[in-house]
Amino acid sequence: MNAATVWRALRSATAEGIRVTEISRTTGLSRPAVTRALMTLDHAGLVESIEETDRLAVGRPAVRYAFRADTGYVAGIDVGPHKILVVIADLRGRPIAEHRVGLPLAATGNTIATQLESALAEAMAAAEIARSDLWGIAIGTPGVVDHARGEVALAPSIPRWSGRPMLASLEKWADCTIVIDNDANMAALAEYRHGDQPASLLFIHWGERVGAGMILDGRIHRGAHSAAGELGFINVGTSLDDEVPPIATERLGSFEYMVGAEELLRLARTRATPDVSARINDEGSLVPLFEAADAGEPRAVEIVDLIARRFARGVAMYTLVFDPDEVVIGGGLSRGGPTLFAAIDRYLQPQLLHPVEIRTSPLHDSGVAVGATYVALDRAEARILARIDEIVTGDK
Amino acid sequence: MNAATVWRALRSATAEGIRVTEISRTTGLSRPAVTRALMTLDHAGLVESIEETDRLAVGRPAVRYAFRADTGYVAGIDVGPHKILVVIADLRGRPIAEHRVGLPLAATGNTIATQLESALAEAMAAAEIARSDLWGIAIGTPGVVDHARGEVALAPSIPRWSGRPMLASLEKWADCTIVIDNDANMAALAEYRHGDQPASLLFIHWGERVGAGMILDGRIHRGAHSAAGELGFINVGTSLDDEVPPIATERLGSFEYMVGAEELLRLARTRATPDVSARINDEGSLVPLFEAADAGEPRAVEIVDLIARRFARGVAMYTLVFDPDEVVIGGGLSRGGPTLFAAIDRYLQPQLLHPVEIRTSPLHDSGVAVGATYVALDRAEARILARIDEIVTGDK
Repeated sequence: MNAATVWRALRSATAEGIRVTEISRTTGLSRPAVTRALMTLDHAGLVESIEETDRLAVGRPAVRYAFRADTGYVAGIDVGPHKILVVIADLRGRPIAEHRVGLPLAATGNTIATQLESALAEAMAAAEIARSDLWGIAIGTPGVVDHARGEVALAPSIPRWSGRPMLASLEKWADCTIVIDNDANMAALAEYRHGDQPASLLFIHWGERVGAGMILDGRIHRGAHSAAGELGFINVGTSLDDEVPPIATERLGSFEYMVGAEELLRLARTRATPDVSARINDEGSLVPLFEAADAGEPRAVEIVDLIARRFARGVAMYTLVFDPDEVVIGGGLSRGGPTLFAAIDRYLQPQLLHPVEIRTSPLHDSGVAVGATYVALDRAEARILARIDEIVTGDK
Repeated sequence: MNAATVWRALRSATAEGIRVTEISRTTGLSRPAVTRALMTLDHAGLVESIEETDRLAVGRPAVRYAFRADTGYVAGIDVGPHKILVVIADLRGRPIAEHRVGLPLAATGNTIATQLESALAEAMAAAEIARSDLWGIAIGTPGVVDHARGEVALAPSIPRWSGRPMLASLEKWADCTIVIDNDANMAALAEYRHGDQPASLLFIHWGERVGAGMILDGRIHRGAHSAAGELGFINVGTSLDDEVPPIATERLGSFEYMVGAEELLRLARTRATPDVSARINDEGSLVPLFEAADAGEPRAVEIVDLIARRFARGVAMYTLVFDPDEVVIGGGLSRGGPTLFAAIDRYLQPQLLHPVEIRTSPLHDSGVAVGATYVALDRAEARILARIDEIVTGDK
């Protein structure tokens, strides 16, 4: 018990470490109890001692103790329709290596499962760690993910990526638990931990697909069917008096159809100047559109303004029912530039009862993988505590 | 500490009470400790002993101890634009008296403050309790209520009912804490505690105004500005490509304008048969419309169907982002009858990723006041524990 308490104190301290006196003060444990706990943690390879040699001190140099973040590692993996991104982090959550793989168009579940393993291997090689060093793996992926059962229940954007079989070989290979969750949930968690940790946060993934993650009191709100945050499927195309066509998960949802990257590309191709349109085609990216808008080119500004107006409607609706402290936009279109986001803000605020802070993600498209490392770390923590427990029991 | 533990055990038991052995088993306290705790509680007037005289037993009759729910009372008050409803409940939360007052059209904050006090006095007279018996008061009211500061921040449906001054005289009079919260939040809590206590519940108040309350893990989700659940203000009248008019809190919100009681009345007056229309005018109620629809009268069915189609859109949107275990509809229109609710369900389910159970509130328009008694009870509990603490300290 004491060892776990001391371990937590060390982990919250900086990498420079803290002295026994400080540990004793923050934990409320006696100095001898702290010293015993430190011996247990040292035994487990979880702590290192640093002598304060760089100061002009009289007598014995003071010793600081630091949490050894390199005892183990975790992998956070983003599996999307177009890419796999693996981030390897140490036990303090600091990313130490990453590997990105582009997926072929219309990659299916089987391709992904294979690519997933080689991407993980590449990232581990870059981080110079072995399989036994990996203490946790978490995967974020689009669609409805049954977090408790560890299954993809519905993956509208990736063909044959539902169920669990594709994780079977990874599970056989790995020596640690594998968690799988909705990508927007993981990205929301990443924004929460990277930011000011507000009481509530709404993260909206804005790319080809539109989805959201909600953090309440530091926890992901998953919903009754792990399906919370499905903003993309809200019907916005039918007049209120008309009957709505049934939801169709094999296509884009009504809202993402109107505001997603595909629609923005279509608008750019049909309404932008020939120059901007040609550059979009050449670069295979919407960046030329955003650049033209930021430079004040009227047709680009008009397109960006239209998409902002539409997108703000969805954000307004969500904000009116959820009333979050903060709204963070991630995904590919979060790189849309100042003109786009100024327009969103201008359209959004008058629709709300209270102004809300809306910002773009500083993590951009690494958010899902980074959030996944946090989820994996939370699981790895259980393993660390078990290891401490083993040693303490063994010592008796 | 032990007294508080025993008190909680007694409160969760039935009114028939439980024996010392059972208390000892459920609390993990020794029999002598339970007996000492029971003496403390008896001292505080919180417990009564019941001899088991009705059984053919050899030796001393067994004694059961029961929580005395009549040591104190709480008042739950619903302050709406048209009525004040006071419910008095005992410490177990059982309603023992209620008093309802109709408000004049366009009643202002001052009128309401006066009526509030006389309605409370009437309800207390009916319950035969004195001011000192009242251990907690909770008020549910529409609009944005700053729960922490105990202020109505925004009351679109009641003129001059914002701020706190109108509660000042009540606070001077009362000998207990007064809590104020949004009415839909309180009704949501009532549905949660009356029902199966699902992990998440969405309550939608459907009357002239439309608002919602969310319960997550047994707690009200209030949002960053106590403004969560403002479904009524979601814009549904403007095409996605058009600019939305700024939100106007002095009028009905866009969604409530399209689905609220006023709109239903307007539809009935312009589209129902002359007979149904006349009956609606005579009775000053929408009941004749619902009755005609349930009897299969085509024009009534058509009106009910239209409002159901519109209402289902709002419920679908909310359900897609929140993914609740259960949706409960309350407010005046929750009495809309089977034709209305069958139509809502028929339009709703195809718009969702997962079917959701949607039901009407069994509490109907008492939900807010009943929910308020629960909130008041939670506050009263703090007072009970303080009283136990006083006695324990006094005994030492």
